[in-house]
Parts: sequence; C-alpha cells; structure tokens
Amino acid sequence: MIKVGLIGYGYWGPNLARNLTNTIGLELAAIAEERPDRRALAAGRHPGAVACAGAAALIDREDIAAIVIATPLATHYALAAAAIDRGKHVLVEKPLAASRPEAEDLAERAEARGVRLMVDHTFVYTGAVRKMRALVDAGELGDLLYLDSVRVNLGLFQQDSNVIWDLAAHDLAILDHLIAERPVAVSANGSAVAGYRHENIAYITVHYASGFLGHFHVNWLAPLKIRQILLGGRQRMLVFDDMDPSEKVRVYDKGVDFDVQDDETRRQILVSYRTGDMHAPKLDRREALSLVAAEFASAIAENRSPLTDAAAGVRVVSLLEAAECSLRAEGRRIAL
Amino acid sequence: MIKVGLIGYGYWGPNLARNLTNTIGLELAAIAEERPDRRALAAGRHPGAVACAGAAALIDREDIAAIVIATPLATHYALAAAAIDRGKHVLVEKPLAASRPEAEDLAERAEARGVRLMVDHTFVYTGAVRKMRALVDAGELGDLLYLDSVRVNLGLFQQDSNVIWDLAAHDLAILDHLIAERPVAVSANGSAVAGYRHENIAYITVHYASGFLGHFHVNWLAPLKIRQILLGGRQRMLVFDDMDPSEKVRVYDKGVDFDVQDDETRRQILVSYRTGDMHAPKLDRREALSLVAAEFASAIAENRSPLTDAAAGVRVVSLLEAAECSLRAEGRRIAL
Amino acid sequence: MIKVGLIGYGYWGPNLARNLTNTIGLELAAIAEERPDRRALAAGRHPGAVACAGAAALIDREDIAAIVIATPLATHYALAAAAIDRGKHVLVEKPLAASRPEAEDLAERAEARGVRLMVDHTFVYTGAVRKMRALVDAGELGDLLYLDSVRVNLGLFQQDSNVIWDLAAHDLAILDHLIAERPVAVSANGSAVAGYRHENIAYITVHYASGFLGHFHVNWLAPLKIRQILLGGRQRMLVFDDMDPSEKVRVYDKGVDFDVQDDETRRQILVSYRTGDMHAPKLDRREALSLVAAEFASAIAENRSPLTDAAAGVRVVSLLEAAECSLRAEGRRIAL
Amino acid sequence: MIKVGLIGYGYWGPNLARNLTNTIGLELAAIAEERPDRRALAAGRHPGAVACAGAAALIDREDIAAIVIATPLATHYALAAAAIDRGKHVLVEKPLAASRPEAEDLAERAEARGVRLMVDHTFVYTGAVRKMRALVDAGELGDLLYLDSVRVNLGLFQQDSNVIWDLAAHDLAILDHLIAERPVAVSANGSAVAGYRHENIAYITVHYASGFLGHFHVNWLAPLKIRQILLGGRQRMLVFDDMDPSEKVRVYDKGVDFDVQDDETRRQILVSYRTGDMHAPKLDRREALSLVAAEFASAIAENRSPLTDAAAGVRVVSLLEAAECSLRAEGRRIAL
Repeated sequence: MIKVGLIGYGYWGPNLARNLTNTIGLELAAIAEERPDRRALAAGRHPGAVACAGAAALIDREDIAAIVIATPLATHYALAAAAIDRGKHVLVEKPLAASRPEAEDLAERAEARGVRLMVDHTFVYTGAVRKMRALVDAGELGDLLYLDSVRVNLGLFQQDSNVIWDLAAHDLAILDHLIAERPVAVSANGSAVAGYRHENIAYITVHYASGFLGHFHVNWLAPLKIRQILLGGRQRMLVFDDMDPSEKVRVYDKGVDFDVQDDETRRQILVSYRTGDMHAPKLDRREALSLVAAEFASAIAENRSPLTDAAAGVRVVSLLEAAECSLRAEGRRIAL
Repeated sequence: MIKVGLIGYGYWGPNLARNLTNTIGLELAAIAEERPDRRALAAGRHPGAVACAGAAALIDREDIAAIVIATPLATHYALAAAAIDRGKHVLVEKPLAASRPEAEDLAERAEARGVRLMVDHTFVYTGAVRKMRALVDAGELGDLLYLDSVRVNLGLFQQDSNVIWDLAAHDLAILDHLIAERPVAVSANGSAVAGYRHENIAYITVHYASGFLGHFHVNWLAPLKIRQILLGGRQRMLVFDDMDPSEKVRVYDKGVDFDVQDDETRRQILVSYRTGDMHAPKLDRREALSLVAAEFASAIAENRSPLTDAAAGVRVVSLLEAAECSLRAEGRRIAL
Repeated sequence: MIKVGLIGYGYWGPNLARNLTNTIGLELAAIAEERPDRRALAAGRHPGAVACAGAAALIDREDIAAIVIATPLATHYALAAAAIDRGKHVLVEKPLAASRPEAEDLAERAEARGVRLMVDHTFVYTGAVRKMRALVDAGELGDLLYLDSVRVNLGLFQQDSNVIWDLAAHDLAILDHLIAERPVAVSANGSAVAGYRHENIAYITVHYASGFLGHFHVNWLAPLKIRQILLGGRQRMLVFDDMDPSEKVRVYDKGVDFDVQDDETRRQILVSYRTGDMHAPKLDRREALSLVAAEFASAIAENRSPLTDAAAGVRVVSLLEAAECSLRAEGRRIAL
Repeated sequence: MIKVGLIGYGYWGPNLARNLTNTIGLELAAIAEERPDRRALAAGRHPGAVACAGAAALIDREDIAAIVIATPLATHYALAAAAIDRGKHVLVEKPLAASRPEAEDLAERAEARGVRLMVDHTFVYTGAVRKMRALVDAGELGDLLYLDSVRVNLGLFQQDSNVIWDLAAHDLAILDHLIAERPVAVSANGSAVAGYRHENIAYITVHYASGFLGHFHVNWLAPLKIRQILLGGRQRMLVFDDMDPSEKVRVYDKGVDFDVQDDETRRQILVSYRTGDMHAPKLDRREALSLVAAEFASAIAENRSPLTDAAAGVRVVSLLEAAECSLRAEGRRIAL
C-alpha cells in the first residue's frame, strides 16, 4: 500500500482525494491545506487522513511515498521539486509548471532521483479521448490533416492567469496525446476585453512540418458552452462533442480525394467527395480521474513511466509558454 | 424601367437572374455567358432577355443602363471597369475585386463617372444580419467585445483560389457591416492539406485599436456543416446559427461585470456574472438576394449610395488581401 | 413510351408533373385542372402536355394509357373508377380513397380489368424508410416491439378533413410497409380545439395480436415541427428523425434482456441492459417521388404489382377509417 | 424546530434526508430502514439522526412531529395512516397511495386529525413548472388547448408496478398543477412487450369537458431519453424540454386564429397563422426537493395546506387508477 499525501484542497483537490481514496494500492494518508475552512472540510470527508496546514511537514513524512499537488500553478515547481528531492513520487495537477525551464528542471530531477513524475492531464483518460487515440492508432482516420478545438463558455475568471493557461492546457494535452508528430511552432492572438487584466479570449495555432494544423479557441465570455474538437483525416473525420450527453464521439466516413493532374496545358484537379455512414462508438464511462489515480499507482508499483509522464508535461507547458510568448509578440510564430 | 444586363450564368448567375426579373423597376434585358449549354439554359428560363456569348456587346448596348457581374473573381475588374467607363451602374458579385488596388480603382472610376457601384454582400441583406445590426445600433448588446465566426463543411473546392477568398468573404462582409469601428490589422494562419494546391483550412484574426477582436474559421474539409457567429457585448451576447431552421438569432441576457479595485496591497477583482432570459426574435424570411436587387434598383433610381457600396467592397477586399498576405508571412500582423 | 394524364395541379400535382416528366418510359401528355390560373401555370411549365379543364376528356383519350390523380380526397373514387373502367393504369395520391368500401371497390375493379392500381405512399420510397425496411428484413432489430410516431407542427388546416386523414396517412403507410404482422384493432382519441370544426389533434393506437403496439400523434397546432419515429426491437432500436439534416436514421445497439424466473417463492426478474454503439447509415438521397414515378412506369411495363399496390392502399384506408370510427366512439377499440 | 422521522432510505430517501437536513425549521431526528447496509449508509451520512430498522418505533416517538415516507408504494397507506393516527404531519413520496380509496381515506384521516398531509410531487417545485404555472396564471398562453407529454428512455424496470404508476405519476402531477379545469375521463392503451410481466409502454389520454386534451407517453424501452411537454394555448405555445441543459422552457409567440363563417352557402374558414418571437425565460435553478422540504416545514409552521396537498395527491392517484382501469378495459374511457 502506497501512502499518499495530497497538497491543496481547493477546486480540484476534493476530486483527487475522493479518487485516491478509492484506488486500490493507494492510501490517502494526509492532506495539507492552508485555509482552515477547507482543511476542516477535508478532515470531515477523509477521517483516515491527517489534515494539516503546511505542505512541508507532509513532504517530510517518511512513511509517505507519493505526493499529489493540487495547488495554484505558481507553487507547482517549488512543491514538486521539494517532494522529488525527498524521494517522493509526484502527481501534479495540469499544467505541470508555470514555465518550460521549471518543467524541464522537474523532469530532470525526477529522472535523477529515480522517482515517477506524472502530470494530471485528465482528459487523456476520458473514454472519448482514449477511443479517439485508438481510432488514430488503428489508422481508421487515415493521414491526419487538422485538429480544431473550441472550449468556450461564460467561465470563471482566473485571477492569476489568462485563458490560455487555464483552458487551453486541456486541449493541448489532448493534441499532444493524439498526434504523434511533434509541432514546430506556435502562434497566438487574443484580447483582454471588458476591462479585465488578462486575456479572456485567445486563439492558438500549432504548426507542424507536415502541414498538419492544430487550432484552439478558448474564451471565458461566450454565451454558449461549447466543447468541441474536429479531427480531420484523409479517410475519415471525427467530432468530439463533450456536451452531447450520449454520443460524444462521432466518426464520419467522409473525405475528399484529389486526383491532381498537373498537365501543363489543362491544369485540372479532380475532387471526389465521399460521404458514408456515421458511427458513434460506445465509450467507457468511468470517471477519468479514477484512471489517473490508478495509472499513478500502477506506474509506481511497476516502476515504469506513466501514460502522462514528465515529458508530456514539459511538451504541454512548452506549447503554453510559446502561445503566451506569441500573444505578447503580435502573433509572431514562435519556434519550439 | 432600368434595363439590366447580366454577365455570367454559372453558379450564382441564375439566382441573380431570377431576382432581377422579379424586381420592380428592373428589366433583365440581356445575359452574357460563354458556355453554350449554360447560355441555352439562360435563354430557356428568361425568354425576355437576349442571350449572347460575349460580354462586350452587352456592355456596349446603349439601352442597357446597369450591368450585373457574376463571373469568376479574376474577371471582375476588367468587366466592371469597362461597364463603368461606358456609364453603366454596376453590381458585382462578392468579393468586389481580386486585389485592393483593383477595388479602389473601380471605386474611383465609379465616383468620377457618377454611376452606382454596388457589391453583392448577400448576407448583409438576410433577416438575421439585419436584426443583428438593429440590435447593435439600439445598444442592446452594450459595448462590443468580439465576433467569432465559424463557416466550415465538406465544401466544393475552388480551383482558382483558397478558402479565404471563397468563404471568408461572406463573414468579413458581415463583420464590416456590424462593427462601426474600423480594424487596424489582420493576421492569418492556414494550411493546404490533403495534397491540395491552395489553403483549404484557414484562421483569420482581425485586430481593432479598442481591443475588440474578430476571428474567422473557414474550412472546406469539415465533417459537419457549421455556420455560427458569436457576437459578444458587455450587456448581452448573441449567437447567429444559420443552420438552425427556426431560431437563427438568439440573444442571451448574459454578461460579466468587473469591479476592478487596483488597490496596491490587495489586488482584487470582483467578477459578477449575469445570466438572464434568452430571446429569439422573429426574422424577416424574405430571400436576401431579392433585397440586394431591390437595393440596386433603388440606389440607381434615387441616385444615392447603396447599402453595400464600393467603399464596403474595398474594405472587405482589403481584409481578404491582408489575410492572404499574412498567410504568406507566417501569420505576421498586417496593418491595414 | 407510356402516355400519362395528370388530374389535379394544386399542391401535390406540380411535384408529380415534374417527376413524371423526368421518368424514363413515361410521357406527360395531358394535365386536367379546373382552376384557370393553376391550369395556366401547368401549361407554362409543361408545354409538351395538353392542359384542359375537365378530367373526363383526358380519361377518354385513347392514346393515354395511365392516369395520375392528385385531386381532393372526396373525388379519388369517381375519377379512379372511371379511369380503371376505361382500361387505364392509375396512380392515386394518398390516401387511396375516402372509405374502405371505396378503396376495396377500386382494388376489385383494377383486378377485374387487369390494370395497375398504385397508391402514392411517398414516404415508403424515401431513403430513410427503405433503409429501415432493409434493417427490419435483415433481422437487425430482432423481434419488433413497438413503433411510436410523432408528426406535429403549426400546420395548414385542411378544410374538408381532420388531422388523421391528412397527416396520419403518411405514418400509417410507413407502419404498413415496415411491419409484416397485420393489426387487429385501432383506437383513437382527439379533440377539435380552438374553435375548429374537425379534430386538429389526434392520437391513434394500432393493436397487434403479438403485443406489438403502434402509436401515432398528429397535431396541427404544435409550436415545434417534430417528425420522429421510434422503432423498438429486442436487439436494437432505431430513431427516424426527418428533421435532422444529415443523420435521419440512427440505429442504437440498445436493448433489455429479461431473465424471468417464476420461482414460486422468490418471484424475481433479472433485467440486463445493453447499450452499445450508435450507427447512422448513409441514406439514398434521391427524391422519393421520382422513385414513385419510376415504380409506376416499371409496374406497368413489367405487368406486375407495384410496391405500394391497391392492397396497401386498402389497408391504410382501413386504418384511417377505423381510427376515425374510434374517435367518434370515445376511443373504443375498433376491430379491423 | 420540528423533529422529522424519515422512513425508507432506498432510491429517493437519501435525497429527502439531505434536503430535510438543510431545511430551516426541520431537524432530521430519525431514519427507519430495514436493510442493514442501507441503514448503515444512512447512519454514516446523518450522524445526528437515529437509524433504526422498524418504522413503528419511529412513528411512536413522542418528540417526532412529522413523518416522511419514502418506501415502496404498497406500504404508503399503512405507514401514513399509522402516522396520522398518532397525530403526525406526513409527507409521502409520490404517488400518495396505491388506490383512490386509500388516498381518500388518508386525506380524511388527516383532515379529521388536523395534521398536514402532503405529497411529494417534486416536479411541481421545479423552476420550469413554476414558471409555466406563472405564465398560465398570467394569461400569457391564452385559453389552453392541450398538453402533450413524452417521458421515455431505456429505464429501470419496476418489479412491482407498470410504467404508468412509475413514470406517468410525474406528468399527471404537472398536469394537475397547471390545468385548473378538472378532467372528466381517462383512457389508456399499452403493452407489456419483450416478455415483461407489467406494461412497459403506455399512452394515457385525459379528457376535459371543454375540449382540452391531455396526453402522456411513458416508455421504459426507448433508445433516446426524451422528457418533453408541449402546452398549447390560443395565444402562445410553450415547450418544456427537461433534457435541454440551458433553456428548458421556451415560449413561442405562435398561434392560429380562425375566422369561422358558417354561411350556409359558402362554408368557409379563414385561418391566419401567427409566428413571432421565441422567448426562453430564466428559471430558478434551486433543487426542487429543497423547496418541497421548505414547503412542508412552512405548511406545518403556518398551519396551512401545502401546495401539493392531500387533495392533489388524491386527484393524481385517481388519474393513475383510472388509467390502469382503462388499460385493462381495452382503452375504454373511464369517467372520473
């Protein structure tokens, strides 16, 4: 049984605590939370775990082998570094850290210390994204052409970051998981409207050498809640609509074939459309976070890299950082 | 009765011919179309109009006072210039011309010659866009924050242009009509995927000095047909979903208020959300193109500038040209 | 080439005329229509057909081998009987006749005279219903359990009939086509609301010996346009949503299995649910009426019974008549 | 502070317990539940309440002034009668009792004993139904014409009752609440398909002297989850779609006006359609059951009849009983 300490019992911490508790092989031994009211709530719900104010004591406990970090982004690095240096396995809420150097430093420390460092890219563990990955791996979509993502609603404004670090982290993690090719550059445009200090609307473009294109629309000020990803392939295209209660992933047997004939005299392109059946596969409906916790436990037990490992965390942070950099540079393309 | 000559009887020409025929004050006197089979079709449907092969003869006819041009984009300039120089009023299918200099030159010629030059920005005449404009003008939305547009489907590929000149022309014309502020710059990213020679996926961002942001997603390779515009204001936000058969425009009484308190010691922002009723106004269901034809007739008869005048045509062409320029320059922001 | 005469150029007549004209093997030779303005319209659109006022002359023409009847229901019987008696093949707009005796008499006359009598149950020829029938025939749904149909909207009121004869005729024809078992009884309830003289809301239940149940909701006073059929089987269930622009038929791999154990002491029923993939097959998008016309031509040429023959017409009229009878008898079950 | 005892901690009991606990003026003092595992669950969640096996002891407790019953339908009568006879106020989960005589007997006992008897018609307390009632009361819909309800899905089969007593109880309670006129008769048709012992598909028609018609479709075997009510009025019509996450109630400014002219010679009816705006009012999103508990507390404290009183419970049970009676009598109309 691996004893786990959880740091942070704010918005996401309670979900982690509940799932850690229910995971075979893990024991939630302690919860650190500074705010007394939240700490009392944690103590009430998890009588088996010691609730304390400071993270340091928890990290210091010899019997605790693993630390889960669910605190504000700015604190990820220091907490994770301290835990790794004490030889603990670490699971960090997304994004892994507030900058690429921080993320890379954590990855190196974990490598050097021989502990597992995992990032909670929750969406990667949903039934929908796992099905999408399986379809991609099986070649069902053919060569991939583009991924277009929209994640907008009238959302809770983050006080300490813009909409990119808050919302786009989800979708970039999905992109990173689905697309084997590695991107070469990032552009972003956005605006801080309605008197807010950080950007609350942003558009990110992720460029690939092959011509594949990723695009992300994140917006805290939309009247509708839209959570939709289009993934286009040469053979088939799919739509992941997270707002659909029953058929979240729909695979369309649609495509376009070009018969390019670059004859000098008769420049011609023959386009043939293909529209066929639509298929909505059954999805695993288990809570994604329970699979995150189980993967953390397994990776520790089996002494192997987790599915969403430090490298994935570094890649997503690199994309976020480049996107913000481009935002500050009038949308200039930032090489990765 | 104003005698009108129509040049071009391909995809859009038949719609123009039908509406010109039904417009009080106009008489469709001649149709020029090079392809014999299309010309025969035109002759059969419009026995009152002379069908001919060449545009020159039609432009030369003394009794024809107005010319409507529905030919490929590359030919707009030469045909319109010839017609204007012969003293004809001219209505050109969107976009007005293939470049900003061409568009400006046409506008100047028309001004100098004292004839009406109108561009067929059809969407501006739909019940939905007119209602949106009325809501904006009445201040119902409050200060405008952003316009986000998606126009994607498995579309007919244009052989001689990319998806921007084909699809975005519609949405940029809507933007131009709804937003009184003039944009300062344009960025665009895109890709020519699946072996096609022109970009078939593109994202355009239009920048404004006030912080207002316009964004456009156009895509010929999407499995779903999406035609949606979000228009966000400080007071209310609206959604124009052109695929909805009954309620195309929905106005949401939703918004966010910031009570910014830039106290040095306690940086704080109080955000209060407002969510109220939703309202879908009844829309005029008349065919937009019938109103285009009527506006052309009225502008000529009343010797006044039409609603979608040469200046609007120049502005939209400028946006398209800047978008394409940015596309060639890795998404660099192009000043207008 | 079979010469065809069309009687009636009101609402449905123009659609029939257009499709008859485009059908190989048929020639639209004459159109009879009493109203001068409609007759002029017909003459303009179909210059190859003789337009006349009275049906009698048309029926008398020796060279005309087939008659298509698109007149008000009350006139179907007399016109069809006259045509049959003159040895013409006859296609009648749905429903076949205004009463079961009339419909049966027509069927007998056609049989005796050796001519084809076909009823235009248009929906039977749609890609959606043909696909549904193919799925049923292939046993994809397993044993059939129920068919539930809703056809409501703010509809045009018929002056001379109630909503059953107008709308339910469509759905009962679909039922008749999909379900091989023959029904044993019909019940119906309804109301004539808002001061109208005929029922404008009605509910029809069709009973089968096996326990299979058919139910139909027809309503001219609904704020939404709903055209939906649920067809439940033991293995799978399907939904036909005619308002869906892209996926009209969806097959759900859902079902319930009962493991009934009638143990005296422990009455128990074990229910296991099955929910699997959803599949929306590609449908033939050809206009159904073009297939109606082609079937009429083929049945004549091949001297065989058409898909929607007189017997189908009689069965649907019998259901309609029984439904109306039940409506007059407080919903009492009327045996067929 | 009113001490409350809850009997039954199965499916609905936990929701009642949670809301009773959170209601000002109420104190959940005891929970009776026969099954040890469920009782342990209740004890863990509600440490302030005494958990016991038998209901009798709980009903006997002097300090408990009110009893809430959430047990299987067959036990409602005996438990409620015992509680009333001991002078307790009683809240019973819907439906009030298993037969009309039982329901009426309970109502009389409560009247005689001077205690409050309330039925938990939960839907009556939803924001949607309260808004609908407000619109009806304000005359916004004009004269009411019909109510059509569909409540279907792949549902949990009840072992001891058919789909009417399970699902239709909700919708008949909504009908009873919205429509002031009292119905005169009920018809019902249904079927027990797929080898199940009770009807799992049913259609109920509720008849009114005015011509108003109520209709209810309940089905445990549908591939889609549909929860929709159409309420038609002469002035406006509304749709309550409980599956819509954001706009559950939509009011359509649609209607039909008849100008009936019963001229002997020229029987004519002029129908004019009206289609206007659609409006989706903001709804109170508070949990309905919290308002049920608050109403129970207030009715006791203020010594007044609750909103969903014994009379409402009797009316709904009468409708259910009549529906089942009609089901057994081939759909014959059963007078109320």
